[in-house]
Amino acid sequence: MKYVHGYDQRENIRLQDQASTLVELLHYDTAYPAGSQVLEAGCGVGAQTVTLAENSPDARFTSVDISESSIAEARRKTEQAGFINVSFKQCDIFKLPFKPKSFDHVFVCFLLEHLAKPVEALNYLKKLLKVNGTMTVIEGDHGSAYFYPDSEAANKAIQCQVELQRRDGGNANIGRELYPLLNASGFNSIRVSPRMVYVDSSRPKLVEGFTRNTFTAMIDGVRKSSIEAGLVDEETFDEGIKALLRTTEPDGVFCYTFFKAIAIKQ
Amino acid sequence: MKYVHGYDQRENIRLQDQASTLVELLHYDTAYPAGSQVLEAGCGVGAQTVTLAENSPDARFTSVDISESSIAEARRKTEQAGFINVSFKQCDIFKLPFKPKSFDHVFVCFLLEHLAKPVEALNYLKKLLKVNGTMTVIEGDHGSAYFYPDSEAANKAIQCQVELQRRDGGNANIGRELYPLLNASGFNSIRVSPRMVYVDSSRPKLVEGFTRNTFTAMIDGVRKSSIEAGLVDEETFDEGIKALLRTTEPDGVFCYTFFKAIAIKQ
Repeated sequence: MKYVHGYDQRENIRLQDQASTLVELLHYDTAYPAGSQVLEAGCGVGAQTVTLAENSPDARFTSVDISESSIAEARRKTEQAGFINVSFKQCDIFKLPFKPKSFDHVFVCFLLEHLAKPVEALNYLKKLLKVNGTMTVIEGDHGSAYFYPDSEAANKAIQCQVELQRRDGGNANIGRELYPLLNASGFNSIRVSPRMVYVDSSRPKLVEGFTRNTFTAMIDGVRKSSIEAGLVDEETFDEGIKALLRTTEPDGVFCYTFFKAIAIKQ
Repeated sequence: MKYVHGYDQRENIRLQDQASTLVELLHYDTAYPAGSQVLEAGCGVGAQTVTLAENSPDARFTSVDISESSIAEARRKTEQAGFINVSFKQCDIFKLPFKPKSFDHVFVCFLLEHLAKPVEALNYLKKLLKVNGTMTVIEGDHGSAYFYPDSEAANKAIQCQVELQRRDGGNANIGRELYPLLNASGFNSIRVSPRMVYVDSSRPKLVEGFTRNTFTAMIDGVRKSSIEAGLVDEETFDEGIKALLRTTEPDGVFCYTFFKAIAIKQ
């Protein structure tokens, strides 16, 4: 998964940009009661961890990730922010060292998109949940990206990211599937709430923080892999990036949707 | 514009379905003060007119449309609902019999998508607005439609509607452009608010009212024109409709976004 999230410093910065501009949109309605035990599965470099800890200062978080270096960065970031209600563990999310029904709540953000078997992951995490515990899942969906002016080259560049992620066993268009995935895993009371990011020049913070520094930076990050994989020629890819940046001009518009689902284990 | 909105009974029913399922989403935040004069430009068969009159019982509406038969239907519907605060007029929206600055507010819904020169229409309507009056514009965007399971044939069928509307001088993807259009027309304080319709089987009213009876019915409505125009073969089109209906099953998901903009004439 070298081309995806959190595996180099630039990606790290991008993820921070993303979390700080999207943080309210995605997380304003996630708060856990005092004393509850919460598992954050796939915390990456901790882009969401600090927000979780901040919004629920009296809950106890256990944040896990498969990458040692990501965990180190997440720990550094959380400690630096002064939070003491998070413990970190490096492990495979299919081999977690916890007993069944250990957690009151599970939180998953930008994880399922990378997994070949997302339902199996949900099944596994569900076992760790107590009865009546909640599962929160947040994922993006690259098929939800559209913009003005429209551009065939930009759509091709985006498709490179989708195809690379697919070849790596993931699914960049998984956001729209949260309801069927949670349903297939036997969760109840599933409620999906789309979080659309709408950007025009009256919202300069999102123009910079989302269109330019999150989405376009992410697509630009697969330039080399895409060309090497023969998915696109250099000229088309670069034209695509130029067209994405064109949407940050005063008459440009950019749209993208994240999906947030909350479900209950009964 | 024979293939588009409001020109036969089936379309009429579809539009009513649409308005009654989308009415809250699109119109809950449109209410005009007592005594204000409001122009509804392009009222069609009155799908929105009744809602406008209901939400602002003490405002005075003037609803215009180019089609005599649509106006007749809109009048019948409004009278039947018991509203006396609407007057109707059949006329071309570029040749309205009103003096400049006649209206406190202008309301436009599903109109610009049909016009070859939307900015010119906004310029023209702007002249009819008093200073500090508001312009409200609501439009859909077919490029915002995506669904699970995804289907190439469904996307092709949707593209037929987009292409037919384009050949007729319109733009089925105009929703995303509201900000630049209003900006080009010199409006101020433009605020665009996307209204995403997210449909899964936990929302049965939208499954029937939107995915099946509004969106899929609309695409199915261009079957004959699309095949005659050579845009698609029968088999692919029918497969596309089947795939759209497939999204209404228990594990299906359908997404579409309308854009609502409010701007001020200064």
